[in-house]
Amino acid sequence: MPGFTSPVRDLTFVANELHKFEDYREALGFEDADPDTIAAIFEEAGRMADEVFHPLNRSGDEEGCKLEDGKVTVPAGFTEAYKAYTESGWSSLAADPEYGGQGMPEMLSKMVGELFSATNHSLAMYPGLSHGAMSSLTVWASEEMKQTYLPKLTTGEWTGTMNLTEGHAGTDLGIIRTKAEPNADGSYAVSGEKIFISAGEHEMSENIIHLVLAKLPDAPPGTKGISLFIVPKFMVNSDGSLGERNSLKCTSIEHKMGIKGSATCVMNYENATGFLCGEPHKGLRAMFTMMNAARLGVAYEGLGAAEIAYQYAVEYAKDRTQGRSLTGTKAPEKPADPIIHHPDVRRMLLTMRSFTEGARALGCWAGMLLDISERHPDEAEKERAEDLLGLLTPVAKAFFTDEGTTHASTAMQVYGGHGYIAEWGVEQLVRDARISQLYEGTNGIQALDLVGRKLALNGGRGLTTFMKEVYKGLKAEEDNDDMKAYVEPMQAALADLQASTEWFMNNAMENADNVGSASVAYCRLFAIVATGYMWVRMVRVAKDALAAGTDEKDFYGSKLIVGKFYMEHYATERTMLRARVEAGCGTMMSMAVDAF
Amino acid sequence: MPGFTSPVRDLTFVANELHKFEDYREALGFEDADPDTIAAIFEEAGRMADEVFHPLNRSGDEEGCKLEDGKVTVPAGFTEAYKAYTESGWSSLAADPEYGGQGMPEMLSKMVGELFSATNHSLAMYPGLSHGAMSSLTVWASEEMKQTYLPKLTTGEWTGTMNLTEGHAGTDLGIIRTKAEPNADGSYAVSGEKIFISAGEHEMSENIIHLVLAKLPDAPPGTKGISLFIVPKFMVNSDGSLGERNSLKCTSIEHKMGIKGSATCVMNYENATGFLCGEPHKGLRAMFTMMNAARLGVAYEGLGAAEIAYQYAVEYAKDRTQGRSLTGTKAPEKPADPIIHHPDVRRMLLTMRSFTEGARALGCWAGMLLDISERHPDEAEKERAEDLLGLLTPVAKAFFTDEGTTHASTAMQVYGGHGYIAEWGVEQLVRDARISQLYEGTNGIQALDLVGRKLALNGGRGLTTFMKEVYKGLKAEEDNDDMKAYVEPMQAALADLQASTEWFMNNAMENADNVGSASVAYCRLFAIVATGYMWVRMVRVAKDALAAGTDEKDFYGSKLIVGKFYMEHYATERTMLRARVEAGCGTMMSMAVDAF
Repeated sequence: MPGFTSPVRDLTFVANELHKFEDYREALGFEDADPDTIAAIFEEAGRMADEVFHPLNRSGDEEGCKLEDGKVTVPAGFTEAYKAYTESGWSSLAADPEYGGQGMPEMLSKMVGELFSATNHSLAMYPGLSHGAMSSLTVWASEEMKQTYLPKLTTGEWTGTMNLTEGHAGTDLGIIRTKAEPNADGSYAVSGEKIFISAGEHEMSENIIHLVLAKLPDAPPGTKGISLFIVPKFMVNSDGSLGERNSLKCTSIEHKMGIKGSATCVMNYENATGFLCGEPHKGLRAMFTMMNAARLGVAYEGLGAAEIAYQYAVEYAKDRTQGRSLTGTKAPEKPADPIIHHPDVRRMLLTMRSFTEGARALGCWAGMLLDISERHPDEAEKERAEDLLGLLTPVAKAFFTDEGTTHASTAMQVYGGHGYIAEWGVEQLVRDARISQLYEGTNGIQALDLVGRKLALNGGRGLTTFMKEVYKGLKAEEDNDDMKAYVEPMQAALADLQASTEWFMNNAMENADNVGSASVAYCRLFAIVATGYMWVRMVRVAKDALAAGTDEKDFYGSKLIVGKFYMEHYATERTMLRARVEAGCGTMMSMAVDAF
Repeated sequence: MPGFTSPVRDLTFVANELHKFEDYREALGFEDADPDTIAAIFEEAGRMADEVFHPLNRSGDEEGCKLEDGKVTVPAGFTEAYKAYTESGWSSLAADPEYGGQGMPEMLSKMVGELFSATNHSLAMYPGLSHGAMSSLTVWASEEMKQTYLPKLTTGEWTGTMNLTEGHAGTDLGIIRTKAEPNADGSYAVSGEKIFISAGEHEMSENIIHLVLAKLPDAPPGTKGISLFIVPKFMVNSDGSLGERNSLKCTSIEHKMGIKGSATCVMNYENATGFLCGEPHKGLRAMFTMMNAARLGVAYEGLGAAEIAYQYAVEYAKDRTQGRSLTGTKAPEKPADPIIHHPDVRRMLLTMRSFTEGARALGCWAGMLLDISERHPDEAEKERAEDLLGLLTPVAKAFFTDEGTTHASTAMQVYGGHGYIAEWGVEQLVRDARISQLYEGTNGIQALDLVGRKLALNGGRGLTTFMKEVYKGLKAEEDNDDMKAYVEPMQAALADLQASTEWFMNNAMENADNVGSASVAYCRLFAIVATGYMWVRMVRVAKDALAAGTDEKDFYGSKLIVGKFYMEHYATERTMLRARVEAGCGTMMSMAVDAF
């Protein structure tokens, strides 16, 4: 299996140099998150990922999970690795100090998520799901509930799950059938079957706190009749000790394309004792709290997949010799040249890298916006961050995970036939990465969230903020000749995004299907612009560092090259995407159902 | 598992109505291949694919192949299915009557290949590899060799393999190490290890004829020192009966991402008896004969993957109910509408279909060109066909297999989370399809073959022929107002292809790396133009049929819609691809190797 080294320098670059988290530290009340501490956190997370998570990645895939008598066995080493992870404080990094957390920025928690996902997607999902559950409890649970559940979830002694999907109800949660009947003691009897429950059952933690969507007896139909319940695997006594086993069980685990080390459970609830979390019938809101936190985490899975794929591909491309360079022999001492000298191999490598570095910058921005939206003392800053984050969340989820799978596959292409063979570890990356395009809302649903909900929210306030930010950022550089190669393609792309947005304004009212027909293309165009804007800013920072005589000439110098390649590759999609938006729904909706 | 019905009507449409094979039948000497017989052949092949191949697809994936004591066990049912296939004459369809073949057009043999690959990629590979071996024997073997091997390969009693790759030598065959030492009796002692040998060992056929690339003792270095040898598993006595086991064996089988029912063997030759096929040191030529035949077959694997993915996706999209249509409820009797009413789902389905129908037309054209190039009495026609086929072979191989994997994945997106679960059968399609982008030359190598070899061949004669053909075809329709939506996008795409070609002429000499930097984008642009040209012609045929008052209004009517969608979707790639070509190699080659 190829090696992996966490891209610590680049993480530090985007957090400290590009987005200058330091400028927000005091306002957000993160006394401890100074630049050196941030760098040290990335360093430590990288060590955990490289040395603990990565070595278990292939064996986890080979072993998979097993279900016997209702008990799930995870792959060898996973339980110990999870323990090392929690004991090193990674589950509590950004958690509320009031419940035992370290109170560090969410941005950091998301960013280190890239490293854990990259090195072991399956293993990273166990703590990952807890984060979604914790977000929801933090926002919606009563103080008593928080005291009961949050401290143990924070330490990782307990894990959490999200129970949304049923066999017939995925995207459309309004039609779920799981029921919750009131018990005399104020609790509820929850009954129903939930599917696709990641980490639904295992023995890695002492208890599992299931957050379950169900309908109360008087529930109105549709999504306005969904409530959220806390359903623990083991009941929790008033002194915090564990009581009896709740009447829920894992009845089967899915046989999947990938993430085989992650137990994907069918969960059966039979009058299981649950506690209403938040108000009755307001579960969808609570679900969105879980989903929003989770979606950004899933975006980072895509980035992680692309990063490890890039590193695997580079290692092979430097080592594998095949053919001679067309511009003259590069390794005369070998029977052939390393394939990294062939331009088509470089095209593949730079496509991957222009994505990973751009996405890392964009993801960091989104992470910082999350912290600002939650903690900035200035309401206007807070609102602005919330607006931007609302847009960037579906965009990052869809774009990062699409590219994660694409580039796992790009790495396979660099490996040639060897990439298809399990022992090289690349084909697992493709299989594992693929799930991220599907869960937490398929990427088509992300695009609909962007176009159907977020664009028009508050009279388009968020979109205006975004457009202005990018416009001003590009404008500030347009007079610099040496920035032209970066600024001009992005100004053109921004104009296409503007035109595509106007197309929606002019056509969505007339025919609502125009929203759905064009949403995926629009979402990608948005991502291309947002990521390209990050590149322009990164190139600026790199040029300044070079001008100031940095010692790290190679690091900053490569930003100029990779950023340029982004413009030559990704930015060229703009006209295609705009044309697809403007094609509208006419042709596709004119086909009779029977003609398919 | 979803159902599959071979697209017989569409196969008949492209062969009989679009490309009018009938017009060439007499000139090519295919007396029996009249339109009705062609339709009947598709019908019968469809029955074999739907009823024999398809039911074994999932079980074959689950069981995989096993190696024990040098013997390979294939999945249950494969041997019987292979027998049914050969007994129904599918292995001999286009084979030379002189050696027991039916002498039908190659075009038909390739076209039915779509159906067998679609329904069972792994199973279809066993006879598929024989075809490559037979092509090579037909062209390069002595008459005695042909008499010895071809009849049994034709009936399918024996199978064939292609032994090219070694651990260190894939794309670069010039550095192979397998040796062939002359024996006293005129045979050779072949020694070496070959990897990735599909169908290298199994018991489905009585004998396996290995075609092996090796180096003679006096071989010049590089590709000019490769010779081709026939190395049978069992020696063949002069009376045709089987003699002793040759000293070769399968030492391991690969654990792969997909095509698990296909045995991918490591073959060890230890002084195995082999016979020189063709001239010494001219093995590369012979290999290209195998490869060219095989490449078109692999292209059809991609088409097949997309076709079955489309059918699986349509079945689910009509059945799965989720959410309500934005333009009003479509299925009031159900809790939600079938997802086929959602425009984004239609976008996915029509993307797939605009590819499959376009590719089927292009593949049929290539198949017909193969027959014309081999048999047309007019040398000019022959040459023209050979020129066009030389261009279309790498284009179809790369484009069809790229889209095959892409659309297997598109189908998964239509299925949402269920698509990731093995029981639905979709994730297998993705895993199986992926290999076709890698073998018979990675798709990057296909693009290099197109740009680096084929474009300039004979002073660019083939390219000129292709450009003229498309230009005239579009010109003929440009004055028809109701064809504008089809013709204009393709005229624009053709102009971009023309400009991209000129870019090569102006820049390849100056820097050879400009060839490799731009080859993949150019190859795809070529495919977009070629396939779009097919669409313009198909729409013409469909319009004529509708104007003539056909009974099949739905069949022809859907061509108009799907063709229009091709223009709105695929044709929009043109500016992106041209921009990527014109970006050149400067940026990508400026990065130091250590900076990756």
